[in-house]
Amino acid sequence: MGSLPRNLELFYDVLSPYSWLGFEVLCRYQHIWNIKLQLQPSLLGGILKDSGNLPLQVPRKLQYLRSDLQLQGQHFQVPMQFPKDFSEIVRKGSVSAMRFVTATNMEQPEMLTKVSRELWMRAWSRDEDITQPQSILAAAEKAGMSAEDARALLEKISTPQVKNQLRETTEAACKYGAFGLPIVVAHMDGQKHMLFGSDRMELLAHLLGEKWMGPVPPALNA
Amino acid sequence: MGSLPRNLELFYDVLSPYSWLGFEVLCRYQHIWNIKLQLQPSLLGGILKDSGNLPLQVPRKLQYLRSDLQLQGQHFQVPMQFPKDFSEIVRKGSVSAMRFVTATNMEQPEMLTKVSRELWMRAWSRDEDITQPQSILAAAEKAGMSAEDARALLEKISTPQVKNQLRETTEAACKYGAFGLPIVVAHMDGQKHMLFGSDRMELLAHLLGEKWMGPVPPALNA
Repeated sequence: MGSLPRNLELFYDVLSPYSWLGFEVLCRYQHIWNIKLQLQPSLLGGILKDSGNLPLQVPRKLQYLRSDLQLQGQHFQVPMQFPKDFSEIVRKGSVSAMRFVTATNMEQPEMLTKVSRELWMRAWSRDEDITQPQSILAAAEKAGMSAEDARALLEKISTPQVKNQLRETTEAACKYGAFGLPIVVAHMDGQKHMLFGSDRMELLAHLLGEKWMGPVPPALNA
Repeated sequence: MGSLPRNLELFYDVLSPYSWLGFEVLCRYQHIWNIKLQLQPSLLGGILKDSGNLPLQVPRKLQYLRSDLQLQGQHFQVPMQFPKDFSEIVRKGSVSAMRFVTATNMEQPEMLTKVSRELWMRAWSRDEDITQPQSILAAAEKAGMSAEDARALLEKISTPQVKNQLRETTEAACKYGAFGLPIVVAHMDGQKHMLFGSDRMELLAHLLGEKWMGPVPPALNA
């Protein structure tokens, strides 16, 4: 008998392109490594505000972000495209989208992965809106949710239950020390390790004693 | 016959612990990949100022830095130890040390790798000063430089030649878009790719079409 799977929490926001990279890598490795992946939809805006982090006030960082994401997208085999008006996307935020993702997690957890991915596909691959109700519904339907279910979930995003859940998850990320997203929290041997960024997955493998085979593990192609 | 080696420039400062990680990885891979590594001693303080980047004003980032460097040091097999008073180290800076490294590069380039490493060993492994003349001389001697040569180089660090060289290299990093260190600039097929951070080495391998075998490639242990 093997040992029990280690719990990994992934805190993410569909506004964050690096969250997408981390998400896809862990979705791939969850079937290879001895882990139990728990997706934790969170609000990037809340984390940046709470930590006092203003990462995009340095023009050269923004310039680098564009080229880095293009290269990383190729390397990770994630169809990333930098949007035309990035500052507009940041300004509009992701509160409604992440409340919808949270509601999905509460009511239809089996749809969580696909709904999250379709929202990233809109914002970070096809440069489409993710703030309007019809945008969110379109992502949910593309993910395979019925129009009826999607509308019912959308109605729930302004309930205290959903708002509180997103707030609590965001606060949990802050308590783990987050100043951005994604973060991974690995629960091992009674210890918690918080790793920040999509570029700590090889380090995560090292911590877990698992094998790192790059962002696209060969088993997936087999 | 194989193709010509690709030129890689590594811009680094011994004040920067992530520069140390990037430096050791590239020192290892320069004998494995088809690359020609050019070390470019630069001034981190100049780059942060020029780019308007103030990375350590976020308390949680500083807290994360400590745990990240400890884990990364183990993973990279670099004997990293977080210093007791990090803010003091940042305040004191690395102008004299990096001028000495620059002078070494100009006059005794064969000593550059070892001198750089010994300065990192002082600042980031043994929590020792790197700003005083005797500290710099001690690092140079530990690197295998004669006391006489070390003193002669130290006398040159206030010459316009050395000061200008460090300024020019730092400006070159800024022109490549640096907002921190290390950066790697890969020259390939008439294109230049700038990668920021010690965590872009697998991406670098991907760009070069070379094999990534982790931060400690097995060939080193063979």
